[in-house]
Amino acid sequence: MKPLLFALPGSGPLGAQLARTFDCDIGDLEVHRFPDGESYVRLHAGAAGRDVVFAAQLDRPDDKLLGLYFAAATAQELGARRVGLVLPYLPYMRQDARFKPGEAITSVHFARLLSGCCDWMVTVDPHLHRHHSLSEIYAIRTSVIHAAPDMARWIGANVAAPFIVGPDAESEQWVRHVAALAGCPYTVFEKVRRGDRDVEVSLRESSDWQDRTPVLVDDIVSTARTMVEAAKRVIELGLPPPVCVGVHALFAGDAYDALRAAGVERIVTCNTVPHDSNAIDVMPALGKAIADMLA
Amino acid sequence: MKPLLFALPGSGPLGAQLARTFDCDIGDLEVHRFPDGESYVRLHAGAAGRDVVFAAQLDRPDDKLLGLYFAAATAQELGARRVGLVLPYLPYMRQDARFKPGEAITSVHFARLLSGCCDWMVTVDPHLHRHHSLSEIYAIRTSVIHAAPDMARWIGANVAAPFIVGPDAESEQWVRHVAALAGCPYTVFEKVRRGDRDVEVSLRESSDWQDRTPVLVDDIVSTARTMVEAAKRVIELGLPPPVCVGVHALFAGDAYDALRAAGVERIVTCNTVPHDSNAIDVMPALGKAIADMLA
Repeated sequence: MKPLLFALPGSGPLGAQLARTFDCDIGDLEVHRFPDGESYVRLHAGAAGRDVVFAAQLDRPDDKLLGLYFAAATAQELGARRVGLVLPYLPYMRQDARFKPGEAITSVHFARLLSGCCDWMVTVDPHLHRHHSLSEIYAIRTSVIHAAPDMARWIGANVAAPFIVGPDAESEQWVRHVAALAGCPYTVFEKVRRGDRDVEVSLRESSDWQDRTPVLVDDIVSTARTMVEAAKRVIELGLPPPVCVGVHALFAGDAYDALRAAGVERIVTCNTVPHDSNAIDVMPALGKAIADMLA
Repeated sequence: MKPLLFALPGSGPLGAQLARTFDCDIGDLEVHRFPDGESYVRLHAGAAGRDVVFAAQLDRPDDKLLGLYFAAATAQELGARRVGLVLPYLPYMRQDARFKPGEAITSVHFARLLSGCCDWMVTVDPHLHRHHSLSEIYAIRTSVIHAAPDMARWIGANVAAPFIVGPDAESEQWVRHVAALAGCPYTVFEKVRRGDRDVEVSLRESSDWQDRTPVLVDDIVSTARTMVEAAKRVIELGLPPPVCVGVHALFAGDAYDALRAAGVERIVTCNTVPHDSNAIDVMPALGKAIADMLA
């Protein structure tokens, strides 16, 4: 039997996109709120003996988590062969250490919670900083899709003579990878400390900028503060208005408007979080990773 | 060292009430939302080697759960001696069976989730219907407080010549207990089937009603539909306007107004869920159960 794909509420378009990328049946997942605020969950397709896949947009995760947990745990209980989650954006990856005493390392606890209701998970460019791989914190099989090839392809097709600009020194490896795939130069912003309280952000010098369009890249665009500052600096340096390319379009509050107001040329993102700026399609890459998991 | 009590956001009054009922130190628990909708949690008191207790109002639970889970799991990780939850209202107890194919038995999955972040839990009158005790679904130690003695005491002190009325035949055992404690008669509503589609709700006959005030009791008052119907029937029968006594004051939507509009004499509830109708104090009973857990 084909694998059975369910989309969580609000993730219907994601489910439809994914269903075109691997061979599956689509199941109807009912999730609603009772008047007392509790969630009701029902799988309208038999899960027993089948591979079951749940697709969910988990940006703004807190209110969505129980529905997903109940649905996946129920598929397991009903005898699904294996239960997988497809989470194009994986939340709770940024609090990956205890920076102050008593802080919850939510990346670890969230991983333990999700690992308790499924057998595998596929995601796109999780924010791996202090954790070096998902297997450090997830007890289930995981597969990570890198958006860099799709981003580089989009940049190559849409920006004449680009050069890639990374937000900080930590991003250099990833930025170099995007630039290599796009066949163009790159640089990164660096913090230059001039005194105890005087930290300036400046671009590492490069001789390759002339007559090129700066392309600011980042993995998560949330408050967009980093990208707004980078765009302003680039423009102050007399360079052309930059193109901004992000993976995950969280855009908290008025972040999108603030970034547009910074004088950028264009803002595009991958379609991991639904947003007007989505222009880079990572669904085929996700579909391939799902098919590999199911193989 | 004394046990350390933390209150979840919105549960500060609960924490203050509980702190008067057992010997403890109060810790400051910080929980806030990042702009991207994720929760940040920090315990501002050392949990290592101590008994740690979290107090939480878990009505409307979905949005609150992760904060509680992160806080409790962090206390465990930081080396707390034991971690306990005090949940005056325990949600997710009503979907206790699969009534239709594919439904999530959320009582079981929620129990598994909570059991994964703490060592014990104390609650007041959980809705035990198809599950006969919490130990059937919770893997941790649990203790259940019965509100009946406090309800009976309030009824005895505030209603002259009461008789207790239960909402359905399933409630009879509980209703009989409240009536015995209050030293008064009782009856229950029963469904009388007159045909395939003709079901009438009627009061079981009793000769003890004369000159008594009906007291409608129920465990959870959510949509209040059951209590509104019961109040209307009681008034139709020519009895005095009833006093309504509930344990858990969920009052979804306009339920409270609807119940008041039904012509009832008064509506009171236990203080397990904060509400204007709270009049019956179960905190001393909860405090005793917590002290027993910590002993």
